[in-house]
Amino acid sequence: MKRTLGVCYYPEHWPEDVWADDAQRMVDAGLSWVRIGEFAWSRMEPAPDQFEWDWLDRAIEVLGNAGLKIILGTPTATPPRWMLDKHPDMLAVDEQGRPRGFGSRRHYCFSHRGYRDESKRITRLMAQRYESNKHIQAWQTDNEYACHDTTRSYSYAATEGFQNWLAQKYQSPAALNRAWGNVFWSMEYDDFADIDLPNLTVTEPNHPHVLDFYRYSSDMVVDFNREQVTEIRAHTDAPIIHNYMGRETSFDHFKVGADLDIASWDSYPIGFLSDRLEGSQDHKRRFLRQGEPDNQAFHHDLYRAVGRGRWWIMEQQPGPVNWAPYNPAPLPGMARLWAWEAFAHGAETVCYFRWRQAPFAQEQMHAGLLRPDSADAPALAEALQVSREINDLPDVGTAKADVALVFDYESAWAWEAQPQGADFDQFRLAFAAYRACRRAGLNVDIVAPDTDDLSGYKFTLAPGLMHLSDPLRAALTDATALIGPRTDTKSEHLSIPTPMGPNVDGLDATVVLTESLPPDVGVPLENGGQFLHWREVLEGDAPVRLKTTDGHAAIMGDKLRYLAGWPDDATWDLILRDLCNEVGLTHHNLPDGLRIRDTQTHRFVFNYAPEPLIWNGVEIPGAGVHWAAL
Amino acid sequence: MKRTLGVCYYPEHWPEDVWADDAQRMVDAGLSWVRIGEFAWSRMEPAPDQFEWDWLDRAIEVLGNAGLKIILGTPTATPPRWMLDKHPDMLAVDEQGRPRGFGSRRHYCFSHRGYRDESKRITRLMAQRYESNKHIQAWQTDNEYACHDTTRSYSYAATEGFQNWLAQKYQSPAALNRAWGNVFWSMEYDDFADIDLPNLTVTEPNHPHVLDFYRYSSDMVVDFNREQVTEIRAHTDAPIIHNYMGRETSFDHFKVGADLDIASWDSYPIGFLSDRLEGSQDHKRRFLRQGEPDNQAFHHDLYRAVGRGRWWIMEQQPGPVNWAPYNPAPLPGMARLWAWEAFAHGAETVCYFRWRQAPFAQEQMHAGLLRPDSADAPALAEALQVSREINDLPDVGTAKADVALVFDYESAWAWEAQPQGADFDQFRLAFAAYRACRRAGLNVDIVAPDTDDLSGYKFTLAPGLMHLSDPLRAALTDATALIGPRTDTKSEHLSIPTPMGPNVDGLDATVVLTESLPPDVGVPLENGGQFLHWREVLEGDAPVRLKTTDGHAAIMGDKLRYLAGWPDDATWDLILRDLCNEVGLTHHNLPDGLRIRDTQTHRFVFNYAPEPLIWNGVEIPGAGVHWAAL
Amino acid sequence: MKRTLGVCYYPEHWPEDVWADDAQRMVDAGLSWVRIGEFAWSRMEPAPDQFEWDWLDRAIEVLGNAGLKIILGTPTATPPRWMLDKHPDMLAVDEQGRPRGFGSRRHYCFSHRGYRDESKRITRLMAQRYESNKHIQAWQTDNEYACHDTTRSYSYAATEGFQNWLAQKYQSPAALNRAWGNVFWSMEYDDFADIDLPNLTVTEPNHPHVLDFYRYSSDMVVDFNREQVTEIRAHTDAPIIHNYMGRETSFDHFKVGADLDIASWDSYPIGFLSDRLEGSQDHKRRFLRQGEPDNQAFHHDLYRAVGRGRWWIMEQQPGPVNWAPYNPAPLPGMARLWAWEAFAHGAETVCYFRWRQAPFAQEQMHAGLLRPDSADAPALAEALQVSREINDLPDVGTAKADVALVFDYESAWAWEAQPQGADFDQFRLAFAAYRACRRAGLNVDIVAPDTDDLSGYKFTLAPGLMHLSDPLRAALTDATALIGPRTDTKSEHLSIPTPMGPNVDGLDATVVLTESLPPDVGVPLENGGQFLHWREVLEGDAPVRLKTTDGHAAIMGDKLRYLAGWPDDATWDLILRDLCNEVGLTHHNLPDGLRIRDTQTHRFVFNYAPEPLIWNGVEIPGAGVHWAAL
Ligand SMILES: [Zn+2]
Ligand SMILES: [Zn+2]
Ligand SMILES: [Zn+2]
Repeated sequence: MKRTLGVCYYPEHWPEDVWADDAQRMVDAGLSWVRIGEFAWSRMEPAPDQFEWDWLDRAIEVLGNAGLKIILGTPTATPPRWMLDKHPDMLAVDEQGRPRGFGSRRHYCFSHRGYRDESKRITRLMAQRYESNKHIQAWQTDNEYACHDTTRSYSYAATEGFQNWLAQKYQSPAALNRAWGNVFWSMEYDDFADIDLPNLTVTEPNHPHVLDFYRYSSDMVVDFNREQVTEIRAHTDAPIIHNYMGRETSFDHFKVGADLDIASWDSYPIGFLSDRLEGSQDHKRRFLRQGEPDNQAFHHDLYRAVGRGRWWIMEQQPGPVNWAPYNPAPLPGMARLWAWEAFAHGAETVCYFRWRQAPFAQEQMHAGLLRPDSADAPALAEALQVSREINDLPDVGTAKADVALVFDYESAWAWEAQPQGADFDQFRLAFAAYRACRRAGLNVDIVAPDTDDLSGYKFTLAPGLMHLSDPLRAALTDATALIGPRTDTKSEHLSIPTPMGPNVDGLDATVVLTESLPPDVGVPLENGGQFLHWREVLEGDAPVRLKTTDGHAAIMGDKLRYLAGWPDDATWDLILRDLCNEVGLTHHNLPDGLRIRDTQTHRFVFNYAPEPLIWNGVEIPGAGVHWAAL
Repeated sequence: MKRTLGVCYYPEHWPEDVWADDAQRMVDAGLSWVRIGEFAWSRMEPAPDQFEWDWLDRAIEVLGNAGLKIILGTPTATPPRWMLDKHPDMLAVDEQGRPRGFGSRRHYCFSHRGYRDESKRITRLMAQRYESNKHIQAWQTDNEYACHDTTRSYSYAATEGFQNWLAQKYQSPAALNRAWGNVFWSMEYDDFADIDLPNLTVTEPNHPHVLDFYRYSSDMVVDFNREQVTEIRAHTDAPIIHNYMGRETSFDHFKVGADLDIASWDSYPIGFLSDRLEGSQDHKRRFLRQGEPDNQAFHHDLYRAVGRGRWWIMEQQPGPVNWAPYNPAPLPGMARLWAWEAFAHGAETVCYFRWRQAPFAQEQMHAGLLRPDSADAPALAEALQVSREINDLPDVGTAKADVALVFDYESAWAWEAQPQGADFDQFRLAFAAYRACRRAGLNVDIVAPDTDDLSGYKFTLAPGLMHLSDPLRAALTDATALIGPRTDTKSEHLSIPTPMGPNVDGLDATVVLTESLPPDVGVPLENGGQFLHWREVLEGDAPVRLKTTDGHAAIMGDKLRYLAGWPDDATWDLILRDLCNEVGLTHHNLPDGLRIRDTQTHRFVFNYAPEPLIWNGVEIPGAGVHWAAL
Repeated sequence: MKRTLGVCYYPEHWPEDVWADDAQRMVDAGLSWVRIGEFAWSRMEPAPDQFEWDWLDRAIEVLGNAGLKIILGTPTATPPRWMLDKHPDMLAVDEQGRPRGFGSRRHYCFSHRGYRDESKRITRLMAQRYESNKHIQAWQTDNEYACHDTTRSYSYAATEGFQNWLAQKYQSPAALNRAWGNVFWSMEYDDFADIDLPNLTVTEPNHPHVLDFYRYSSDMVVDFNREQVTEIRAHTDAPIIHNYMGRETSFDHFKVGADLDIASWDSYPIGFLSDRLEGSQDHKRRFLRQGEPDNQAFHHDLYRAVGRGRWWIMEQQPGPVNWAPYNPAPLPGMARLWAWEAFAHGAETVCYFRWRQAPFAQEQMHAGLLRPDSADAPALAEALQVSREINDLPDVGTAKADVALVFDYESAWAWEAQPQGADFDQFRLAFAAYRACRRAGLNVDIVAPDTDDLSGYKFTLAPGLMHLSDPLRAALTDATALIGPRTDTKSEHLSIPTPMGPNVDGLDATVVLTESLPPDVGVPLENGGQFLHWREVLEGDAPVRLKTTDGHAAIMGDKLRYLAGWPDDATWDLILRDLCNEVGLTHHNLPDGLRIRDTQTHRFVFNYAPEPLIWNGVEIPGAGVHWAAL
């Protein structure tokens, strides 16, 4: 498949007489795709059941006739104001009990049946109208599920929905009481209708109560999306996509993805480094205008898994954005580098967000490929360069990875429900492992927690998976793998099993004590590194591979081994070096900012640093990309 | 006009038999004015329509007969408890949706028609009763509008008021939708009655929505004040004053001031340095007991503009206060220094707050000129010293300033609505420019944003004015002036105009890209300084006066020039030095803590430092004041 | 009395067939006591008026027959879900106005009459059932009053209760207005029914309003507890205990304790160091796995006073807990050291919390003496060691102390209501004084604020007591004592008296000015130390014992002296050295982490440091205990 570029466009924002010129300039810039429609409900249906499709018909025609392929989005992330008159209680409610009102976007509760029907209705109408439109080559459902913390709603609709969901799951209050351990603190229920959402309790609510609410909330996103997919599929075979966000773990993307044809995500490297990633002040300053070197790659690999191989970037940052605490401009070259990093990880398409910077409303300080006055913005030339480079390279996908990293949304929720220590979480742990792989120059696949076959990988990492699925538990028994900390130490109900975990055949190790640690205290290891944040004490007869200086096992096991803490970066590097040596993989030690990723035919080298770096004798400029045939 | 001193007094707090002695001691201390009445509603009208004026008549008589002139305040900042029975919905509502209850002060919503009528009623009754009382020589409306974040209320009354205000302004929902860009995210309205206040939205509300709400809220303060003024003016010609606060930008003081005769403000140098000014820990420690050396001067100059030349200090800190995070005592001498700084800036009167420290209620730890046990507190002797010094000096006003600094409340709101970067704002920028003027020893006028004539100034600074008024835009075309960053980059509706700004005749420069920066990252300049927080990229043919080290213009223009970032202090100093050289003004380089201000006849030198400093060969003690004839 | 050990046990959490084995293992571990029942309401009364006592009867029988003495707890900290159907408004309301819902524990408002009756009912039923059960040798009321900030509720029930309480106290609104100084800001009331709780006001509420609400809230705890005590005493003579918490000052423990036979507290040294004690990062790191060396001792001495000599530890941390920001494991030896520190301070019994780690619900990561899989956890062996050591030592109590420290809950509330400076409070001041005593190796009694006889002590410390009781005021007149800062500077209504305080016979010193200071600013003293946070200026003819370098008195007085600030630790050490020299007490200078406490027969030495320390030529290992006959 040929790699392609695209852009997000809002014809409803601009006078109709500029559409044709915009379309031609898109084509001239080498763009193939244009995404439209996803925020335009108030223009499609300005009043209840009063539709205005003509403008959209014409916009599709103009764009399509220019040679662009169109992704058409359902507008359900932005229900119009009149919707609230029909459904006054459709708003989500925040954890403090306050309705989240109209005036921005995503103002709906996933549990609200009335709004769900509206979502199906508008989706059906769009699918019916455009089912045979040859320009519509893909569909997008909604926009950025979960963004602005919208997965979980503490509304009446959610309360009722949760109670029914629990009744389905547990069948009897007694079974739920047992599963949750409600005898503790007399929290027992005798009617599902008595179960509140786990907010505004006197002290922390019961962890399985929280976990089940997070599961329920995730299921509502899955259901909401599936309803739209069902409507669209009834009319067209065009692929259906959703655009996910970065570091968003509040719903199970694997489950949503299972209903879709392609995964996509919205990549804002500079905003994300600023507002949702840990890092020292030095690190954040060094990569201020480039973004965290490993965050894009992590999400590329994650969403490749979510899309079962097919994935896009639906929104690519082109310049300064408006929503992070600080919003610097990218270094020249980054709009190109980010696109190539995506392609090297197998992206089919990279769409920049957005075509022309809007001069009004919330995102008026968010750059586009054009300035508000329609002059070229800096990223436009970089997009053109990428489009030309695509033509010079073979149209192949990403390389098969040697390393699997298991990522599990349920574990993220379990960790949230039961952190046991402040300021760290499961994503951070998984990402620390991933970053070490990147420093080692490894190609990684992120795999789902129900994976039943790891035989294609040289080794597997499964840090922080609180509870192993049966297939994965089986697959691990004859894999070279590193699991832990916390891995398989909990039951599906977030309780401690007996025998205590991990309980994987072939690994005689048991976590018998856990401690969490403040950031300035580490547990020294015999190899000179240390555990941070978290350490566990192990018992068992598995061979000890590494010890803490106070004499406890830090890593135990044979091929399958357990890691009894949260390693610092240097220790992660040693762990990966040893694993690579063991399985015969080349282990690199990449300089800070230099990263590599292989496609089927080429090795790509990315320099995220601001200064030139040398790779195999080649000097790669700051913010530069280099590739060489394999 | 002779400079005078005064004090704030609460006869209702003390036994009637001490009033006469208090009055005599005030006179003995050299005080001419006494402010009374502004918190005494529950004593004037203990129950609805049941009045007790006798005590107030007697207090006025006792004070007036001692020779004191009285400022009589309307008591509307403290409606009595029974008012809530008449108007249960008169309370303001906070941004989180909670009514702001009875039990302290300022418990009213400016939009509430019922309370507005009560305010008019009590004001009318007071004006009628005291219109011909010869001792009442000035009136004060309410007390410290906006204090405790009370300008903006999210009540039902405010919602209705805002909707009507919008309907008046835009005439049709369609016009409002266009002005706000509501097509973005389908935020369009078809009825003004559907428009909520911009709080509790899912993510940030539309910026012009916020800005219009801030404009509306400011207008309500203006209207509230005007209603009182109208009542008072119907009965008396005595000047009417309001006492503003420090670093309070939530309403347009110029507009309130236009209805009044004199502006005044409440100056708490030590509290304000602690609770509302930026500054390094070293700086705050150095001036812990003196206050920020430039903050008083800034507000003196600001309120002189608000009062169209006539201004007072209505409350002058005399000792430790009770409301800042920490409340140290002033250095000996500061109660004198602060008064002279005010007089040098043209204050007619400085009133200390308060006469005797109240032994009860919220402010019992707030010092006065007397201790709670009626002994002299330290500031009393300093007040007496000032009163004697006044007699030795000519009764003239402040010097004409050479430099104009434009300050614009609407820009402060626009910046609040659209900060684009955390932890800085428009006040901070304007104050940084002002502080540089003070370090340079310049006399500054702060001028309103609708100023149409800058010809009296050697040069003008207009940093951060998001949108220029027509008169100012015209006045700038032939002024020596420095504008930017952000200046004139937005339309009146807080959108980006085409052509992009600034759009001032004679300045060919356009802001084409903006970035905001974390505090630890600067943009180096070729002169050795740097931009902090904010930088813009300029295009255009105007001559480049200063460059960033990465090759962009930092300052462009001829006489009128644009500053493309937020300079550090050293750069501000260089900018001002160059401007002074250009226009032939003397540029000082004052030591840290030493400040000067000219009156029409004398140069005053203030030493805010704790240690002695030398000025022109004269050693000025720490916390000391020096003056010399010009 | 023989020292004893015990444990907390939840038979309802475990299959009945393990009870006997658990009981035997308890006995084998040297435990004498077992606490049960306090969270089991939903198992005692699964539905309204439907009781299931059989399981509890059997549990008591099994445990008792094994030789264990039982403490039976009333289950009122955990009302079952069905209670909310009977009393929907029984929930407490937080300061933000939100009901604090079901789903954890302590979900009740102390002011709610309906729930108070439920509390009496279940207590009466338990007392009736078990009055003659010989195994029940003590009763516990409720569990950890105030925990999770539950003393103060902003409910309707509390509002009504507070109004009635005020009516009883003041008899007329006019008297209340005078006491509170409500004339200030027109806050006067003419009906008790108009007085709201002091939350959600526009700015800070009136301090005596706050103080009276805190007094009222404390009284509700006292009443609630007394009602249970009355029910129990009607049926049995077994001692009645409550288990208090650490650094919990929201109710008057002396008043609750007056109705009980024994005080106990729940000692979590590691959690408390992390989540509720000040300390440098170095200090917190050094004692990360041992806890603050003086915090346990402080509370031992405090609760010995609350229990009028009789006190226990009801819950002793045995390993990592789950509820602090970080939860490290104790150093080996600490579970023994903590127990001996308690015994040295006179504890009769130390109960570990809990027997077996619960594998489910909120505390599943909280260690016990057994692991969740029933294997021994590390603390079990330490408990056994203590039980053996008990047998080798005489069964005597703690030594008579030489030093009295007055601790006053009302002053803590007054300081909360009127902090005057951020980030310090009365507990912190009292604890700083106490820690200095510990560094000096002194045996301290904490005494109640209505103490009328200090003659048994060599000297007395009374820091921060805002208002002296009449008996204490009298007792101080001929005591060697250090009072201040803030001591006796306020009336009972939290106003400033005239003459200004302190007003104690024989001490001619008056606080005439107060300042609070940021943490980085001190007031240097002539002895090389400094005041932090707080300093007062004194007047009077008492001899000056110490001066600030700016010439003010820092300590004034003869035998009775006033301390005019908050000393740093070095100054506290000098103050205590001087006091010791004056009265002929030995003053130690203990190394960091080493602490001593005398019993009637032995001196105990505790090494809280991680490394060995030398005491009188004896090397005591880290986390070690040493004792020697006196
Ligand atoms: Zn169809
Ligand atoms: Zn009249
Ligand atoms: Zn009985």
